[in-house]
Parts: sequence; C-alpha cells; structure tokens
Amino acid sequence: MVKILCGVDLGGTKISTGLVDEKGNIIKSIKIPTMAEKGPEEVIKRIEQSVYDVLKEAGLKISDLKGVGIGSPGPLDAKRGVVISPPNLPGWDNVPIVDILSHKLGVEVKLENDANAAAIGEHLFGAGRGIDNFVYITVSTGIGGGVIIQGKLYSGENSNAAEIGHHTINFNGPRCNCGNYGCFEAFASGTAIARFAQEGIQNGKDTMIRDLAKDGVVKSEHVFEAAKLGDEFAEELVDNEAFYLGVGISNIMAFYNPKRIAIGGGVSTQWEMLYDKMMETIKKKALKPNAEVCEVVKAELGENVGVLGAAALLL
Amino acid sequence: MVKILCGVDLGGTKISTGLVDEKGNIIKSIKIPTMAEKGPEEVIKRIEQSVYDVLKEAGLKISDLKGVGIGSPGPLDAKRGVVISPPNLPGWDNVPIVDILSHKLGVEVKLENDANAAAIGEHLFGAGRGIDNFVYITVSTGIGGGVIIQGKLYSGENSNAAEIGHHTINFNGPRCNCGNYGCFEAFASGTAIARFAQEGIQNGKDTMIRDLAKDGVVKSEHVFEAAKLGDEFAEELVDNEAFYLGVGISNIMAFYNPKRIAIGGGVSTQWEMLYDKMMETIKKKALKPNAEVCEVVKAELGENVGVLGAAALLL
Repeated sequence: MVKILCGVDLGGTKISTGLVDEKGNIIKSIKIPTMAEKGPEEVIKRIEQSVYDVLKEAGLKISDLKGVGIGSPGPLDAKRGVVISPPNLPGWDNVPIVDILSHKLGVEVKLENDANAAAIGEHLFGAGRGIDNFVYITVSTGIGGGVIIQGKLYSGENSNAAEIGHHTINFNGPRCNCGNYGCFEAFASGTAIARFAQEGIQNGKDTMIRDLAKDGVVKSEHVFEAAKLGDEFAEELVDNEAFYLGVGISNIMAFYNPKRIAIGGGVSTQWEMLYDKMMETIKKKALKPNAEVCEVVKAELGENVGVLGAAALLL
Repeated sequence: MVKILCGVDLGGTKISTGLVDEKGNIIKSIKIPTMAEKGPEEVIKRIEQSVYDVLKEAGLKISDLKGVGIGSPGPLDAKRGVVISPPNLPGWDNVPIVDILSHKLGVEVKLENDANAAAIGEHLFGAGRGIDNFVYITVSTGIGGGVIIQGKLYSGENSNAAEIGHHTINFNGPRCNCGNYGCFEAFASGTAIARFAQEGIQNGKDTMIRDLAKDGVVKSEHVFEAAKLGDEFAEELVDNEAFYLGVGISNIMAFYNPKRIAIGGGVSTQWEMLYDKMMETIKKKALKPNAEVCEVVKAELGENVGVLGAAALLL
C-alpha cells in the first residue's frame, strides 16, 4: 500500500499539520495554536498530538505514514535534526526535535528550515515541477528562500544557503533586523513596505494609508489597498517595492543562473500590481543571458506551501 | 603511462599554454600574443600552434596528451563548446571552438569560461583543495567568479552562474560596463579603484597618486603604492575597497554558504592592506552562522591559475 506523508509546518503562532499523498494532494489538515510561550517540551507535545488528531480525522493510523516532515523557522541544523534558537520560538536552544519525535511516534522524522522545505514543496508539487535549477523566495514579514540545484536542495555548508533576505542590495540602506544595513529584506519585505509608509505618514505625506489602518498599525496590505484606490504616495511605495524586488531577483539570477524563480508569501498575492515594474527592473539590471533563460513566476502552493513542503521532505 | 594535461588560457591580449601533470605541476608553459584583431580563425590557428610548440619544448607528442582544456572569456556555452561573443575577442560570433580544435588536434577538447576554470583549478590544485563548498573570485580589471557545490562546478542553466561581479551591492551606485548601476564590479574591481582615484584628482584632492601615474593614466597599483607611502586620500580609497570587498563577500556567504572563499586576481596581491578591514566588514554584515563556517583566504595559484584551471577541466 502507498504510504501517506505527514507535513508539519511549525510557526511561531500556529502549527499546521497535514496528510499528503505522494502527488501533493492534501488529504486532511488541521491548524492549532503553537503556544510558543510554553516552551519546547509543550510545543513538541502539541505537534505529536496534532499528528494523532489529523490521522484520526482521516480515519488513518500511524503505521499508514511514511514519516513526518517538519518545516521549522531557523537557525537549525537539518543534518543533525536540531532546532537551534529561532527568534520566534522562545526558550528553544539546540532542541533535538527529530530524535524526540521519531522516538515518540515510531516513524521517520525529517527536519528542514521552512523556506528550504517550501522550495522543495514548490519543486515537487508546484511552480518548480520538472525544473532542475530553481529558486523559491517568500516575501512576507521577512524574506526567505531555498535553492534547488541540479534537482536537489542545496543547503550549504551549515544549512544557511539561500539566505536571500540578508544579502545587501544597498549598503547605505536602512538597518535590518539581522543588524546589517541595506539587506534585501530591509527594503522589500512586507514589514519594510509598512515601515516606509509609516515614515511617510510621520513626515506629513498626504495619504489615505493611515485611514485604512484603523487601529493605527500600518501594514503592507493597507499600502496595496490605498494604491488600488489611486493614492499617489501608496502608488509610489508599490513602485518602489517592485523595483526592490527586481534588484534582489536580478542578484539571484547573477548568483544561481536558474531556469525559474517562484515568488511566494503574502506580498506575492499583489502579483498584478508588482509584475510589470519588477520585470522592467530585471531587464535593466540583470545580465542578458541570465535574464533570458529565466522565468519569474508566482508560486503555486499558496497557504499550503508549509505543509506540502514539510511533507515533501520525505520524498 | 599517465597522460599529460594541456591547459590553454585564452585572453584578449595573450594565449598561455601549459603542460600540467595530474597533481597540478606545470611541466612547461609558453605565452604568445593573441592577435585578437586578426579574428577567430587566426586565433584558433595560434592556439593549435601553441599546443604543438609547448609539446616540442617538453619533448612530448600529441598522443601523450589526455586532452586540451580551454579557459576563455565569456559569454560562452560550455556544454556545446561554443564561444559566443566575448567583448575582448572581436569578430567571435558563436565559434564552435571545441569541435574545430578537437578535429585539428585529434584529442579531447573541453571549454569553460575563465573564471569557472580558475575555480576548478583552485579547487583541485590550490586554495580549495578538499573543500566541497567553495567559491573562487578574481578581482582585477573586472570581477569574476566560479562556485563549487558539493565538489562539482555549478555553472547554472546556461553557464552563467556565479556572475558575482554583476550583482548589485548598491542600486544607487556608479554605472557598470554591463549597463547596470552599482554592481560589485563597479565598486570593487581594479578599474573601479582607478576610477575613484581619477575622480578624486579631478575634484582637486591633494594626493601623490597623480605623480605616481607617470604617463597620466591612473591604475589601481598607483593607489596601493601611494597608500603605502602614507597618502591620506589613497588610504581612504584602499579602506573603501576593503569595505566593498567585504559587502560582496558577505553576499556570497548569504547565497552559497560556502566553507571557503578564495580571492585571486591583481587586487588580491595587496592582501595585507585589505584583509583586516574586509574581515571587519564581513563580521558586521554577514549572518553569524554563514560567517563562522567560512574562511576567506588568498588564492594560491597566482598567475598560473589560467593554465592550471584550463588543464583541470580534463579531470
């Protein structure tokens, strides 16, 4: 009998656990709060329980599983199966999650950082199907990425390859959460869009963005919404975003020379507003042979990329 | 009997051809002018002749060769063995150099772009020995690079991976020869150092650089020389160069997460003047796990890297 894959997308606020067949169809999935504040022992118990719960809902049992894949925030050591110390999982310090869960569940458990897992998911089930040299990037609160080289994930010397969000695109740029100045993430993440909007408002820009942010907290969604309504300052911010994406993607082309780059994450849901200006920037900035050989597409797996990517670790 | 490797370093001004054993020792090498202005047919004849000449000098014959490796400026298509249209080889337009030379010489011929060949050379015979995830960059008139991933050259979808010189480190930067603004090469190449010096002189900087450039043409060497003599403006330029190198190398770490990065090319001969400030910049800019796992070293093969890299293509 064909075995079922179980994918666990471990996040700072929620755990998504899904059963997936080998073609990437989700059979059943559930979502529970992480309760990260209770620490690693409790969170791992919740992961274990979520696996049993989703199996129960699908009328399956643990022996039907090929294994459990976990996509976790980094830093982590995928080879040793250890989560090191993710900023949004307080109290985690070199937790051997693979050993603990494989012992508890009695099945194979695999670990990868969430962006790498998503890259594998898109490669096997989504926008990277059949593409040997493929890059996935996710643009949401931060920017992460994963790279498939000659058909396989390349994770680097210590699982930190494709830290695309933390490469410098303007060394005179704003400070990034990582401490560096001018990171791709500091210019082009959803958080950065919101920060640029907030700065504009503080400097007295005439914009409806503030009115859309009803609780006073400006988010990137408000900027896109205002731009759709014709707000000039918001349009300028969206144009800048498309330009910054174009710079970062041109750099991805220079380093990896891939055949396809897929963009996922919250910001990519505004694809139509960003695409033209982004491609225009790439055309100006990337080397011609690198740009000509490479398609830039929207990722396909949407919100399911976490679960599907984690499940794909078992293939 | 162990066969001998022949490496041809095809440049815009000279062709270096050498016989190399499988351990990377140069048995004999010669250098002739390329005479690029005479066009591809004549240049290929000169390559053929240089192979026979170096064999004669070594008392060997064509049947002693395992083959001939050619390192050429890009763009080229390594898989098809075609040189496309390098700016410094005028008149070359999709020249099937591998077919032509293997037919003429009757031995296996391999082609790779010069920076990739150099990366293979340093990986097999120099600073990258035994290092599976290794990046080589050359900093001279331009900046090129090659990347070894899991022990093998990664050349990308159409032989243009690791175009490290043409990734943007400051999108508000100076225009690069490639047309983009703010490329690593436009900030950190030898040509860029000379350009910054020239601009300073034009703006009335009090510096001895101009006096050192006796024929009025400022070169990067003059800047390093003036800095050694205590010239303040030259020292500032050298410090800036070290900073720019640090930015580019931090980006290499973010993308490839290698275990070692080796720097070759003319600018690297000023290693002692650049190292401290470059490493200080990397420490500030690179992600900690990426920086901690990676050594930055001077390349080992020096002027022989072209011939040794080309020969290494046969291994």
